[in-house]
Amino acid sequence: MEKEKTIMDQDTVSLDDEGNAVVIIDQTLLPGRTELIRLKTAEEIWDAIYLLKVRGAPAIGVTAAFGIYLLAKSCKTENYDIFLAEFRKNKEYLDSSRPTAVNLSWALKRMERVVTDHASLPVPQILSLLKKEAEEIRDEDIRVCRRIGEYGLTLVKKGDGILTHCNAGQLATVRYGTATAPIYLGQEKGYGFHVFADETRPLLQGARLTAFELASAGVDVTLICDNMASTVMKNGWVNAVFVGCDRVAANGDTANKIGTSGVAILAAHYGIPFYVCAPTSTIDLATPTGADIRIEERKPEEVSEMWYRERMAPDGVKIFNPAFDVTDHSLITGIVTEYGVLRPPYEEAFRSLPGR
Amino acid sequence: MEKEKTIMDQDTVSLDDEGNAVVIIDQTLLPGRTELIRLKTAEEIWDAIYLLKVRGAPAIGVTAAFGIYLLAKSCKTENYDIFLAEFRKNKEYLDSSRPTAVNLSWALKRMERVVTDHASLPVPQILSLLKKEAEEIRDEDIRVCRRIGEYGLTLVKKGDGILTHCNAGQLATVRYGTATAPIYLGQEKGYGFHVFADETRPLLQGARLTAFELASAGVDVTLICDNMASTVMKNGWVNAVFVGCDRVAANGDTANKIGTSGVAILAAHYGIPFYVCAPTSTIDLATPTGADIRIEERKPEEVSEMWYRERMAPDGVKIFNPAFDVTDHSLITGIVTEYGVLRPPYEEAFRSLPGR
Repeated sequence: MEKEKTIMDQDTVSLDDEGNAVVIIDQTLLPGRTELIRLKTAEEIWDAIYLLKVRGAPAIGVTAAFGIYLLAKSCKTENYDIFLAEFRKNKEYLDSSRPTAVNLSWALKRMERVVTDHASLPVPQILSLLKKEAEEIRDEDIRVCRRIGEYGLTLVKKGDGILTHCNAGQLATVRYGTATAPIYLGQEKGYGFHVFADETRPLLQGARLTAFELASAGVDVTLICDNMASTVMKNGWVNAVFVGCDRVAANGDTANKIGTSGVAILAAHYGIPFYVCAPTSTIDLATPTGADIRIEERKPEEVSEMWYRERMAPDGVKIFNPAFDVTDHSLITGIVTEYGVLRPPYEEAFRSLPGR
Repeated sequence: MEKEKTIMDQDTVSLDDEGNAVVIIDQTLLPGRTELIRLKTAEEIWDAIYLLKVRGAPAIGVTAAFGIYLLAKSCKTENYDIFLAEFRKNKEYLDSSRPTAVNLSWALKRMERVVTDHASLPVPQILSLLKKEAEEIRDEDIRVCRRIGEYGLTLVKKGDGILTHCNAGQLATVRYGTATAPIYLGQEKGYGFHVFADETRPLLQGARLTAFELASAGVDVTLICDNMASTVMKNGWVNAVFVGCDRVAANGDTANKIGTSGVAILAAHYGIPFYVCAPTSTIDLATPTGADIRIEERKPEEVSEMWYRERMAPDGVKIFNPAFDVTDHSLITGIVTEYGVLRPPYEEAFRSLPGR
C-alpha cells in the first residue's frame, strides 16, 4: 500500500508539546488555506468556538477540555478555593461561546468534576489530573470514531462507491470522524473507495470540508450538488451511504443535516443500504420519535446570499431554511456505533447497549 | 379577485409597436434588475441569445422569428433573389448563436419556408407574411402554454401547495410558462396556491428566475434549497409537483433539469402526484426510453465557483456536473400537454395524440 499524505497526520484539536496552547485547524479558512492556530488565552479559545474556527460537537468538546486545563494552569495559586472560583469563572465564560453545543458543556462539566472530586489534593496534582482528563476525553473520541470505522468497514468491500452528506468527518471530531471513519480506515487498508460528497446547501460543508479532508487524505472523492445524488445512484456508482447524525430518537428516527432524509429515500428507491454512523452518546432514549425533535430554522440569508457575489434571490422572497431533517427509522439499514452495527427493530437494539 | 401586478403584463419576447425592435427582458440582470432591452441589429439579436439574455427553448424560437423578420425588413431590395440570399445569410448567422437549441433552428426554418413558398410574390408582401408567421409562432406558444395551464389546473384545488424545480416558467416561454402555467391561471382565478421553488443548483434558475417571476406575479412563493424538498413534502405542505421537461421518450421517461428525478422519487415516497408539463413538441417517439437520451455534462466551475465570492471547493477536487437527469415513467403521475393530461401507459397515450 502506498503511503499517502493524509490530513490525519494532524488531529483536528491537540495540545502542543509544551502544554502551552490548544492547536486547531482554522476551519473558516478551508478549503483555501490550511492553517494551524495556537489558542492560549480565554478570549482566543472563546472566539475560536464562537467563530466556528473549530466546529463539530466532539471537536468543540475536546477544545474546551484542553482550553480549560490551560486556563487553570495559568492561574498562579496554591489556594484551592481561589483556584476553584477561577476555574468556574473560566468554565462559565467558555460555556457561553456556543450555548447549544451539547459536548461543550458536557466536557466542561466533566473537567469541573475533576476539580471538585479532588478538593483535598494540592493544586498542582489537580492540574495534572485535569490534563489527564482532557486527554482522556480526546482519546475516547478517537477510540469511538475508530471503532465506528472498524464496524462500518465490515459493511462495504474494496472498490465500493460511498456517498456521504454534509461533514461528519475528521474535522468535526479529533480523528477519523464518524461517517468518514470507515472511509479513512478503508484508505489505510487500500480499499480504494470512490466517494461522492454532497455539497450540502446552504452552508456547503460537503464542498468546503468533506471534499477537502478526504482529498487531503488521498481518497478518491467527487463533489456533487445535492440534487445529483439520484443520478450517481441510478448510474450504479454508489454501494452504500454513510451519514453522521445529531440525535437518534428511541425508535431509530435520526436527525441530521438538512437533506439527509432525501438521500435516505433515494437510497431506498435504488436499493442501496443507508447507514447512520452514531456514537451511542447521540442515542437519546428520552426522545420517543423524530417528531419530538425540534428542528432549528436558520436565517434566510444563508440561502439567498451567504456565499454569493451578489444576492441570488429576489428581494423579499420568502425562504424556508431548516438546518436539519429527520430520517425515518424505516429508511435506515443500520446504525453504526462504537459497540457494533445495530439493526432494526432499533428500540430493542438500543436496550441491549452497555449501560442502558 | 384582487387585481395584482404581474410579470405577465409583459411578454418575455415581443415586437415593439412600430415593428422596429424585438423587446426582451434581459434575464442576465434578474433578479436584481428588470430591464427591457430592444434588439435591432443582427449582432444584438445574436448576442442576446448567445449571452442568455433570452433563454428557454420557446422564448429563443420566438426571438429568432421576430429577429429574422426585422432583418429581412431592413434589407432594402425589391429583388427576390437578393432578398432570399440576404435572408439565408441572416438565418445562418442567427442559427449559430446556440447550436443545440432545437426551437431556434425550427423557428428559423419555418420562417425561411415562408420566403421560399412565396417566391412569386413581391418582396413587401413576403415581408408581411413573415411578420404574420412570427406572430403565429408566438401565438402558438402562448396558446399551448395556456392550454397546459388549463389542463394542469384541473389537477389541483384552491389553497394547494405546489412544488416546482428549475424554471419552466414564463421567462422560458412568451407567456405562462409550462410548469408555471397552472400556477398563473390559478392566480388569475384566485386559487391562492402556496408554491415552493427549488433553488436548482448549480445554476440557481429556481432562485433567480422562478422565485422572481412568481413573486412578481404576486404568487405566494417560498424559495428552498433542493435538499429541503423532502422536509416540505413530509410537513404536508405539497399537494402536487409540476415540472417542465426537455424531452419525453416514447415510454414516458422524461429528461429535465438535474434533480428532477430525485424530486419524483421523493413525491412517490410521500404519495404526492408528480406532473410533467410538456408541449407535445417535446415528445420524441424516435427515442425509445430515457436511457437513449444523452445527458450533457457541464464544466465543474459551475459547481465550485460560478456564483461564489471565492472558490468553495478544494482545488483540483473532482466534480461531476450533469445538466439533466431522466425521470422514470413509473414515477410520473401524468403528463400535461396542450391536448389534455396523459396517463400511463404512456406509449398508448402518445399514439392517441393528434398527428401521431
